[in-house]
Amino acid sequence: MRRKQTGSPELKQVRALAIDIFGTVADWRGSIVKEGRPLKRSVDWGAFADQWMTGYRSRVEQVRTGQRPWANLDLLLSEAFADLVQSFKLSDIPKDKLARFGQVWHRLRVWPDCLPGLRRLRTRFTVGTLSNANTILLTDMARNASLHWDCVLCAELVKRYKPEPEPYLLAVESLGPRPEQVMYVAAHKWDLSAGADKAHLRTAFIPRPKEMPDDSSDTGPDPSYDIDAKDFEDLADQLGA
Amino acid sequence: MRRKQTGSPELKQVRALAIDIFGTVADWRGSIVKEGRPLKRSVDWGAFADQWMTGYRSRVEQVRTGQRPWANLDLLLSEAFADLVQSFKLSDIPKDKLARFGQVWHRLRVWPDCLPGLRRLRTRFTVGTLSNANTILLTDMARNASLHWDCVLCAELVKRYKPEPEPYLLAVESLGPRPEQVMYVAAHKWDLSAGADKAHLRTAFIPRPKEMPDDSSDTGPDPSYDIDAKDFEDLADQLGA
Repeated sequence: MRRKQTGSPELKQVRALAIDIFGTVADWRGSIVKEGRPLKRSVDWGAFADQWMTGYRSRVEQVRTGQRPWANLDLLLSEAFADLVQSFKLSDIPKDKLARFGQVWHRLRVWPDCLPGLRRLRTRFTVGTLSNANTILLTDMARNASLHWDCVLCAELVKRYKPEPEPYLLAVESLGPRPEQVMYVAAHKWDLSAGADKAHLRTAFIPRPKEMPDDSSDTGPDPSYDIDAKDFEDLADQLGA
Repeated sequence: MRRKQTGSPELKQVRALAIDIFGTVADWRGSIVKEGRPLKRSVDWGAFADQWMTGYRSRVEQVRTGQRPWANLDLLLSEAFADLVQSFKLSDIPKDKLARFGQVWHRLRVWPDCLPGLRRLRTRFTVGTLSNANTILLTDMARNASLHWDCVLCAELVKRYKPEPEPYLLAVESLGPRPEQVMYVAAHKWDLSAGADKAHLRTAFIPRPKEMPDDSSDTGPDPSYDIDAKDFEDLADQLGA
């Protein structure tokens, strides 16, 4: 169901990939559940992870729509975390352990196809992040997961969150410089359609399981994007890397 | 002649290094001479390299001081190159070879201590660039030289050239977030003193031979900086990496 074949002239111009991180590369839910479970057995850590995500995303939306001034993701994650420490009654966990757990996003694990797939893609393309997370979080996470990026691009650099146009335009300027030279890769259709496609980047969709808590229909193949790939290894196959 | 010992409390807070590229990491003069020589034997390629550098730096100054609007380094380098093609009478060189040579900054070679020194430093610190070059140039150069950065920070991201404060503040936000957590490493004293030191970053000076055409006295040890290092291997020694 690809709109354009790999060998098409459009895709031959691609020289760089800009890649979404949370969900697309990082298994944030699994990472939170795994680190949370030993802290307190009685907690529903899957629900905790989902609420952490919805808590920071609602804050991202407040910033994105101008209801509050710029704040980076580390700050929004810590605000959402403080709420959950109350509502999930976690204050009996030792303070140092709780503080360390609050930084779990800096240590997110990645889907197993990422390391081999990205290694292959980097042999042929310049490969950078394009994330709503901030640089410190992204560099910490990459170092912890042994991921290698050619550069780290993020919302913090333009003080605007995706799907506002500025982050995608940053990717074009930093990796292209023409939009058709840059392919945006994400597991979220809102991100691809409302963001990257509007900014005229090439697009690749990689479905991931249960990326949104209320979302069961989001992972089907979609002819709107230049490439539908099963994972990063399949993306490397399709791009001839 | 170090102002602060490696084990000092000040330096123990350093978690990241921001590193100047042209001169400090890249041997731009040697790279230009080496690629230029086979194109035309009669040219003084050392003089050509120096004039290319002074040609782009005067343009950087025009942008930095507001005499012209933002333009990235690839554009300023190509303008300076076009001048030199005239003055050094290079138009008899085949067009494709000349165009490729015009991009030599994307393929700069690095001083021999950089690869082993930076590899050691990255085991202990987050290590990024902080360059007046643009992202595409920096990622191309790193890929060509097998350098690995945790992130690529540059003037293009803030649309202001060093030694204006914005690039150094970008390094603090992206790597710190406190200024004493970030050490700026450069071979240029103007860059360290007028830029990094003023923005309260930690500073390390690495002398490089004949970094400025008119400059013979610039490489002596200097107690103004937190660390004087012979090269990146020595910097790794001094920082215990």
